[in-house]
Amino acid sequence: AIEADIDTFRTMFLELHPKDQTDVFLHLEESERKRVYESLSPDEFAEVFEGLEVEEQKEIALELNDQYAADVFNNMYADDVANFLAELKQDNVTDILKAMDKEDAADVRELLAYDEETAGSIMTKEFIAIRAEDTVSDVIELLRREGPDAETIYYLYVVDANDRLAGVTSIRDLITSVSTAKIEDIMSTRVVSVNEKTDQEEVAQLIQKYDFLAAPVVSDENVLLGIVTVDDVLDVLEEEATEDLGEITASRGSTDVSLTSFQAAKKRAPWIIMLMFFGLITAEVIGTFEETLETVVLLAAFIPMIMGSAGNTGTQSLAVSVRALATGTIEKRGLSKTILREFATGLMIGVMSGAVIALLLAVFYQDLLLGGVVGISIILSLGVASVIGTTIPLIINKLHLDPAIASGPFITTLNDLISLMIYFSVATSLIQYL
Amino acid sequence: AIEADIDTFRTMFLELHPKDQTDVFLHLEESERKRVYESLSPDEFAEVFEGLEVEEQKEIALELNDQYAADVFNNMYADDVANFLAELKQDNVTDILKAMDKEDAADVRELLAYDEETAGSIMTKEFIAIRAEDTVSDVIELLRREGPDAETIYYLYVVDANDRLAGVTSIRDLITSVSTAKIEDIMSTRVVSVNEKTDQEEVAQLIQKYDFLAAPVVSDENVLLGIVTVDDVLDVLEEEATEDLGEITASRGSTDVSLTSFQAAKKRAPWIIMLMFFGLITAEVIGTFEETLETVVLLAAFIPMIMGSAGNTGTQSLAVSVRALATGTIEKRGLSKTILREFATGLMIGVMSGAVIALLLAVFYQDLLLGGVVGISIILSLGVASVIGTTIPLIINKLHLDPAIASGPFITTLNDLISLMIYFSVATSLIQYL
Repeated sequence: AIEADIDTFRTMFLELHPKDQTDVFLHLEESERKRVYESLSPDEFAEVFEGLEVEEQKEIALELNDQYAADVFNNMYADDVANFLAELKQDNVTDILKAMDKEDAADVRELLAYDEETAGSIMTKEFIAIRAEDTVSDVIELLRREGPDAETIYYLYVVDANDRLAGVTSIRDLITSVSTAKIEDIMSTRVVSVNEKTDQEEVAQLIQKYDFLAAPVVSDENVLLGIVTVDDVLDVLEEEATEDLGEITASRGSTDVSLTSFQAAKKRAPWIIMLMFFGLITAEVIGTFEETLETVVLLAAFIPMIMGSAGNTGTQSLAVSVRALATGTIEKRGLSKTILREFATGLMIGVMSGAVIALLLAVFYQDLLLGGVVGISIILSLGVASVIGTTIPLIINKLHLDPAIASGPFITTLNDLISLMIYFSVATSLIQYL
Repeated sequence: AIEADIDTFRTMFLELHPKDQTDVFLHLEESERKRVYESLSPDEFAEVFEGLEVEEQKEIALELNDQYAADVFNNMYADDVANFLAELKQDNVTDILKAMDKEDAADVRELLAYDEETAGSIMTKEFIAIRAEDTVSDVIELLRREGPDAETIYYLYVVDANDRLAGVTSIRDLITSVSTAKIEDIMSTRVVSVNEKTDQEEVAQLIQKYDFLAAPVVSDENVLLGIVTVDDVLDVLEEEATEDLGEITASRGSTDVSLTSFQAAKKRAPWIIMLMFFGLITAEVIGTFEETLETVVLLAAFIPMIMGSAGNTGTQSLAVSVRALATGTIEKRGLSKTILREFATGLMIGVMSGAVIALLLAVFYQDLLLGGVVGISIILSLGVASVIGTTIPLIINKLHLDPAIASGPFITTLNDLISLMIYFSVATSLIQYL
C-alpha cells in the first residue's frame, strides 16, 4: 500500500508547476520530505531545489545523501548551483564540486570566480550557440536535441571558429525563413552584448531598454561566455530596489521579514546608535547657544519644525537622485545641471514655506521678528538641504564609495545639524530685537 | 542631392535598433525631424514613436499630419497607443480613435476602459491563440504568417470555441514535437492566468515567481482577452519602485529629473508645508512644557537626538513593511506576527541605544538622572516608533487608502510628536530631582 501511495504522490506532485512543487515541499515534515527524496529522481528534485531560497537550500542539502545531492547539482543550471555555493564555507564547496560531474563543476567554478553583482556572476552557461554557415533546418534539428536543456532557446547566438560572438538570430526568424536558408543570411550582425565585468544593474537597464529576453555576455576578446536572461534581471531589479530602500532608510540587509527580532535588532541598532552620536553633536551645538535659548525659551519650540522641514526637503532630493541613478537619467543631463536644478527647487520650496510660516507666526504669536527669524532660517535651510540631499548620493556613486553613507538618516542628521546652526545664528544675530 | 541624402539617411537610420533610432531621433532639430517623417513610412516611424516617453510623444504628435499620425497609431501595439491616449484630453482621444482603423481603434478603446494599474490596462492584444485540434504543422504555418505582428510568439495560448482559455504550449514544445502531433496532445491544461482586474503588481509577482515570459489575462468567464509580457513587467517593477520611494520620501510624482525646478517645487512644496503644520503642533507641545524647559534648559539639547532616533527607527520599520508588501512576504507570515516582531525589534534597539546614551550622559555630563530620563525616553520612543512605522503602511494597504499617508515624513512627524511627549512627560515627572 505504501508503494502505491508513493506512486500516487509522485504522479500528483510532478503534475504541478515546479514553483508550486517547491511551495508544497516547503510545507512537508521531515519524514515526508524523506519520502520525496525516495520517490523523485535527482533530476526531478533539482527543479524543486532550484526554487528554494539559499537559506532553505542549506538546510535541505544536509538531509540528502552525498551521491543524490551531487546528482541534484549536476541537473541544476550552473548559475543556480553557483548562487547556492557562494553562501557555503570553502571546504563544503570543494567537496561538492569534487562529487559533481567534471564538466558541470567546471561551469560552476567559472561562475564562482566572478565578483558579486557582475554580469558574469548572474549569467547562465546553458545557451545555444550556432554557426553562420549552418542552415535553418540544421539549427531546428539542433534545437530538437538540445532545446530541453538550454535555459532559453528564443535567441540563438552565432559564434565564429574562435567562439567569438558574430551575430544573433531568433526562433521567430527561423520559423519565418525557408529551411534551406543559411544563418548568415538571416542573422543580425549588430549584436548588443555586455562585458563579463559589467555591473548587473547596467545589464538590467540594457535588457529593459531594448525589451530583450536575454543578453549575451562576452569577454574582452568578444568570446561568448554565457547569457543573462530576463528572469535573472527581474531578480536583479528586485534586489536593487531593496538595496536602494535599505540605503535610504539605514536598514540595509535587515528588511527581510524572515529575520528574528533579535537578528533584526542586532543589524539595525548600530545604525541608530551611530546616528545618536551625531545627535550628541547637535546637543553640543544647542549647548553653545544656551545663552540665546535662556533669553528666548520659545525658540526651542521651533527646533523640531525647522529641522523637520530641512530633513524632509533633503529626503525628497535624495529620492530624486536615487531614482535618477537607478534609471540612468543622470548621464543624460549632467551632474552640475542636476545639482543646480535641485538647489533652485529647494530655494523655491524654502521661499514658499518660509513665507507661509512667517505670516502664521506674525499672526498667531503677534511676533513679527520671530516670524522673520524662522522664515529666513527655513529658506536658507531648505536650499542647503536640497543640495546636500542631491549631491551626497551622486558623489558617493561617482567615487564608488559605500553608498550607505548616502543613506537618508545620515543626510537627515547632517541637515539637522546645519539647519540648527543656521537657525541659532540668525536668532543670535537678531537677539537684541527679540 | 537632397534625394540621395534622404536615401542614405533612411538606410543608415533603419539599420539601427528601434530603441537607438529613438535615441537618435531625440537629438534632431525640428527641421531634421520633418525630414524623418518624410522619409519613413508610418509603419517604420511607429517603432520610433513607441520608444518615446509620453510627454515627448505629445509634442511630436503635434508635428505629424493627421493621416500620417493615424497610420502611425494603426501600426503601434494597442497597449502603447492606449498608454499615450490615457494622457490626452478626451476630445483629442475621440478624434484620434475616429481617424484610426476600426479594428485597431476597438482594441485601444477596450484597453482604455480599464482602471489604471490593472492587468487589463497593461496587457497587449497582439497575441497568438490556437485551437486544441490544430496540428503542430498548422501552427507553424500560422506563425510564419502572423509571427511578425504578434508581440510574443514564444507562448501559444489554446482557446476553445467560446474563446475560453483551455491550455498553453510553447514554441519549444512545437519544435521538439513531430509535425503531425495535435496541439491537445502536447499542450498543458494547467494554465496560470490572471484576471483582467488583477493589480499590476500582483501580475509582476506572478511572472517573477514562475519565470514566465508572459501571462494570459482572462475575464471572469475565463475568456482570453490579452497577454502581459515580461517587458511590461519590467516597466511595472520600475514604476512601483519609484512609487514606493516617492511614498517613503513624500516626493511622489516629482522624482522625474526632466521636470523644471519650478514644476518640481510646485509638486513638493505642499508636502513640506503640510508637514510644517504638523511641526507647529510639536511647537505647541513644547510650549506646554515651557515651565519644565525653563527649569532645565539643557533638556532642549536632547530634543533633536530623541526625535531623530525615534524617526530613524520608524523609517527602518517602514522600509521593512514596504518591502514585505512589495515582495508579498507579508501574507506568508500574517499581520499581527509581523507587527509584534517589529515591536520587539524596536524595544531591543531602544534598550541597546538607551543603555549606551544613559551611560554616556552619566559619564560626560556627570548627571545620572539626566541620563536616566533620556535613556528611558529612548526605550519607550523606539518601541512605539517601530510599531507606528510598521503598522501604518500595512493598515493603509489593507484599507486601500491613499498610501501617501504612509509616507516616511508623515510617520517621522508622528513619531517626533509622540517621542517628544514621552520625553517631556518623563522629564516633568522627575523634574524635582533634576
